[in-house]
Amino acid sequence: MVNYMGVLEYDGSRYCGFQLQAEDVPTIQGEVEKALCKAEGRKVRVSYSGRTDRGVHALGQVISFRLKEEADLYRFKWSLNCILPDDIAVREIARVEDGFDARRSAKKRQYCYYVVNHNVQSVFLRKYSVLVTQGLDLEMMQEAASLFVGTKDFKAFSNESGAKGTVRQVYDLVIKKTGDNLLVFEIIADSFLYNMVRIIVGSLLELGRGQRDMESIEKALRSRDREQAGKAAPAKGLFLTKVFY
Amino acid sequence: MVNYMGVLEYDGSRYCGFQLQAEDVPTIQGEVEKALCKAEGRKVRVSYSGRTDRGVHALGQVISFRLKEEADLYRFKWSLNCILPDDIAVREIARVEDGFDARRSAKKRQYCYYVVNHNVQSVFLRKYSVLVTQGLDLEMMQEAASLFVGTKDFKAFSNESGAKGTVRQVYDLVIKKTGDNLLVFEIIADSFLYNMVRIIVGSLLELGRGQRDMESIEKALRSRDREQAGKAAPAKGLFLTKVFY
Repeated sequence: MVNYMGVLEYDGSRYCGFQLQAEDVPTIQGEVEKALCKAEGRKVRVSYSGRTDRGVHALGQVISFRLKEEADLYRFKWSLNCILPDDIAVREIARVEDGFDARRSAKKRQYCYYVVNHNVQSVFLRKYSVLVTQGLDLEMMQEAASLFVGTKDFKAFSNESGAKGTVRQVYDLVIKKTGDNLLVFEIIADSFLYNMVRIIVGSLLELGRGQRDMESIEKALRSRDREQAGKAAPAKGLFLTKVFY
Repeated sequence: MVNYMGVLEYDGSRYCGFQLQAEDVPTIQGEVEKALCKAEGRKVRVSYSGRTDRGVHALGQVISFRLKEEADLYRFKWSLNCILPDDIAVREIARVEDGFDARRSAKKRQYCYYVVNHNVQSVFLRKYSVLVTQGLDLEMMQEAASLFVGTKDFKAFSNESGAKGTVRQVYDLVIKKTGDNLLVFEIIADSFLYNMVRIIVGSLLELGRGQRDMESIEKALRSRDREQAGKAAPAKGLFLTKVFY
């Protein structure tokens, strides 16, 4: 068996998330494994860097999988892209060492969240951003963003229900303004809890709108109580952009 | 009567062009006049800076229209955007002097054409760009682009059938590379002949791929013969981006 990695781009709008579910539920994993199976002529299972939720998009999701023989990479990628639906694409495929696993080998993940801060939603970004019509105090949001950087217990900022640990290391969280009215939240961590990025962004938006203050963010972080953090921002603004190995 | 101008953004994918046609044919003008009629309570006709073809998009189409009374601009824009379908938006509305007409008063128009030059089409740009998988000689294309600048007879580079003049003044045509593999053709002219941008872009792409040489472009321009120019590039890559008054 030969081990491969692939970089995927997808528009998550019409999928019930990345992870495989029952056969009649549309998922990214389902589509990708169906395409691999068709191209390889047998069942192929993929490993992936991180689950993305229903409606979340990706520019750089990473998968790994094994094939029986060495493939002509360019042709294999071409075949997969012909089989895959229009809203999923394989950007890259590469041969990797046997021990590589898209999930276990990943060191850091980067997500981006897009906010249009204007009185009219952009026709072209409407499926890929959330519209905020109120004025936002960007400077205060940027200051609060730094509170999330470090190794912390993010239990309050997640909908994680399992008994597993809720401490994560956030390496970076910045909010950039590009163009007249587009805000981009960029966050990098070792890994993320369930809904973590969306709840952090939602809380920062509440702060920026004046619906909460800086202290309430610090308090929420210390509390480990989901009730104290803000609402999760909508899935459609979120992109898994890069995975670091 | 009070005169207004509006700036429109639209995704042309599911419309049969800007210009009004029979009632059951979806057009941008049809949707915009329907929304204006609903908001104003009587029939409103719009003038527009330029027709865009079936499948062509806009970031800055300009319209003008008259209302019976002065409107609260912010609320009127908000109402229009609530009535309009998701793929059409009014970005701005402003009161203008009586003599202003979106078409007659326009001095220059800018269009942009997007080309993804890669072996995989982008999931997010697939409806807004054309994919070219072959290598392109960008430097030669840029050199050839300058041949189109000036006051010239563009008959060969149009599908204009009428008897009207085919001389136009192109102020600027540049090809920019942004990111790893996105090419943007930006062209500004006083006005454009039918399919003119798409035929110029199509011809430049043929040159970039090595399917024709520089001399054939010069010859085509001089010939006034449509057969000598290249194929029109697909509509979906084209955006009306700005109108100058």
